[in-house]
Amino acid sequence: MFQRHGGDVFTYPGILDLSANLSPLGMPESVKKAVRECADSCAQYPDPLCRSLREKLSVHEDHPAEKIVCGNGADDLIYRAVHSIRPARAVIAVPCFSEYEKALSETGCDIIRHLLREDEDFLPGPDILDALTADVDMLMLCTPNNPTGQLIPPELLAAVARRCEENDIVFLCDECFIGFAENGEEYSLKRNMNSKTIVLRAFTKLYAMAGLRLGYALCGSSSLAEKLRESGQYWSVSAPAQAGGEAALSETDYPRRAAETVAGERRYLTEELASAGFKVYPSSANYILFRAGEGLAERLLKEGIMIRCCGNYAGLDGTFYRTAVRQRQDSEQLLKALRRCING
Amino acid sequence: MFQRHGGDVFTYPGILDLSANLSPLGMPESVKKAVRECADSCAQYPDPLCRSLREKLSVHEDHPAEKIVCGNGADDLIYRAVHSIRPARAVIAVPCFSEYEKALSETGCDIIRHLLREDEDFLPGPDILDALTADVDMLMLCTPNNPTGQLIPPELLAAVARRCEENDIVFLCDECFIGFAENGEEYSLKRNMNSKTIVLRAFTKLYAMAGLRLGYALCGSSSLAEKLRESGQYWSVSAPAQAGGEAALSETDYPRRAAETVAGERRYLTEELASAGFKVYPSSANYILFRAGEGLAERLLKEGIMIRCCGNYAGLDGTFYRTAVRQRQDSEQLLKALRRCING
Repeated sequence: MFQRHGGDVFTYPGILDLSANLSPLGMPESVKKAVRECADSCAQYPDPLCRSLREKLSVHEDHPAEKIVCGNGADDLIYRAVHSIRPARAVIAVPCFSEYEKALSETGCDIIRHLLREDEDFLPGPDILDALTADVDMLMLCTPNNPTGQLIPPELLAAVARRCEENDIVFLCDECFIGFAENGEEYSLKRNMNSKTIVLRAFTKLYAMAGLRLGYALCGSSSLAEKLRESGQYWSVSAPAQAGGEAALSETDYPRRAAETVAGERRYLTEELASAGFKVYPSSANYILFRAGEGLAERLLKEGIMIRCCGNYAGLDGTFYRTAVRQRQDSEQLLKALRRCING
Repeated sequence: MFQRHGGDVFTYPGILDLSANLSPLGMPESVKKAVRECADSCAQYPDPLCRSLREKLSVHEDHPAEKIVCGNGADDLIYRAVHSIRPARAVIAVPCFSEYEKALSETGCDIIRHLLREDEDFLPGPDILDALTADVDMLMLCTPNNPTGQLIPPELLAAVARRCEENDIVFLCDECFIGFAENGEEYSLKRNMNSKTIVLRAFTKLYAMAGLRLGYALCGSSSLAEKLRESGQYWSVSAPAQAGGEAALSETDYPRRAAETVAGERRYLTEELASAGFKVYPSSANYILFRAGEGLAERLLKEGIMIRCCGNYAGLDGTFYRTAVRQRQDSEQLLKALRRCING
């Protein structure tokens, strides 16, 4: 039952979907309103440069607007980065989000998989620096990492950024889940930007806007931003996504409430999963990686719950599972079903 | 004043935009309603396979659903086709929509420009068959062509499709404007599909849905469809686009009315432009290519009208212009302004 990704509620309508990792608070009302109001102006082409949205993002992220590129979801920007940089050799740290490798393979790139160790809870260590040699063109890391939930230690992240600059390696750091980490900004690559760095973020997860498709890249240099902007199609970001993104940025309290809800529930679910006998990996995201017997996802599906079996992640196998962290009633439903699965 | 594309009303707010080519009837009310109603369900990921939309498209186009791939606008599918096929050598007929060459150049492809002749009104002739040699991997044509407005004669299109099949050339035929041609379906590659053909269509122009981003590819084989589907990101089509597309397909009379409005106005504007002394090329689309002195677009901009200067199209220069065909009042406004420009 390997899926390319979670969130396929269309195959299983009515299911409790814990395979996708979206804010448990749902999409803000202001965003819904913006989409409704935008309907009347969808005849015309959207602004290809997302000017108004980028101005607001510039304030929100304290990053120059000309170094921000918006995309049709963060995934769009992963592909555009790869297609514009066209790396001959790239490093990824596995297990990780599978689209990095898929995008890289589209250009025939030589992909070096740096293995994160299970016996170190998949925490990246300084040995990753050894992989960043002068013949490497691109590095993709994710913090907190999907599906492990681990944050890269700030000192290590700074050292990685320095090494990338020295060796002319474009460093794309996927921070799509960092809004759910406690003191997440202290772990951001934004504190160590240089001319080779790209920070990838999205509205998808933090604001539960997956259906609208909106992500953005904070580039360390104008030339890198120009490359991403020029890569791929001209009008990649739809009008509803641009309108929704602007509305989301006007939310002052929503991201904090989403992160707090997740933090509390993450503690609870981590403890409960551990006390139920599962090996649980420490997470700073809105999902938790844990280990159990094979076939658990299929059994949970019969209980009306969809989690993510991680068997198709490089570096993992069919005994690893990822569950989203949502509200208490969802955790309780999951835990009850898990107990039934364990007890036959 | 070369633009990458038309439709940039964000730089010139309040302008009469004749640089983008959208249905003069505007976006159907049913599509607006669908977008508004979709707002509440934009938290979750859209269906990555666009199953419901493809089922409706299958009926509408009389083409098997498994051979249809939807994209974030037709442009998304141009890039996905190129990135999945990775042609070493490709043929395009210029002048044409610039994204074909841009997409091809992203893969380092050797691009052969087959020149359409101005003294033949840019009508493609049988000499294009000579360009389709065994060392070519991909062909992109557009009918009616953008910006010339010319349809490819059906017998020639059939011969091109046969030659492509014989020589293992993927043939992408962009038919995004064919809904505006009289008896357009008789000119479609759909009548001569084979395992190497892809027909590209979009909701953008015919339904004036440019802001939503929705196009689709009708593939001649399941393997070609699979390639396009697997290329690029998983969730390329947003939820509002899928909902809007389904609503558009429920419109029974709108496409006919849009085409009729365009046909009448195209005749009128063609005659008036010719009698004003411009060289006008025969068009089957919702735009007209004509020739005038350099600097006309700048002068019209001062009159509050934006048309497309075609100086950055391969095979054209700064004396070619493209104007959209819309409603009578738009034609009158354009013609009056043109007279003022000509008379100093």
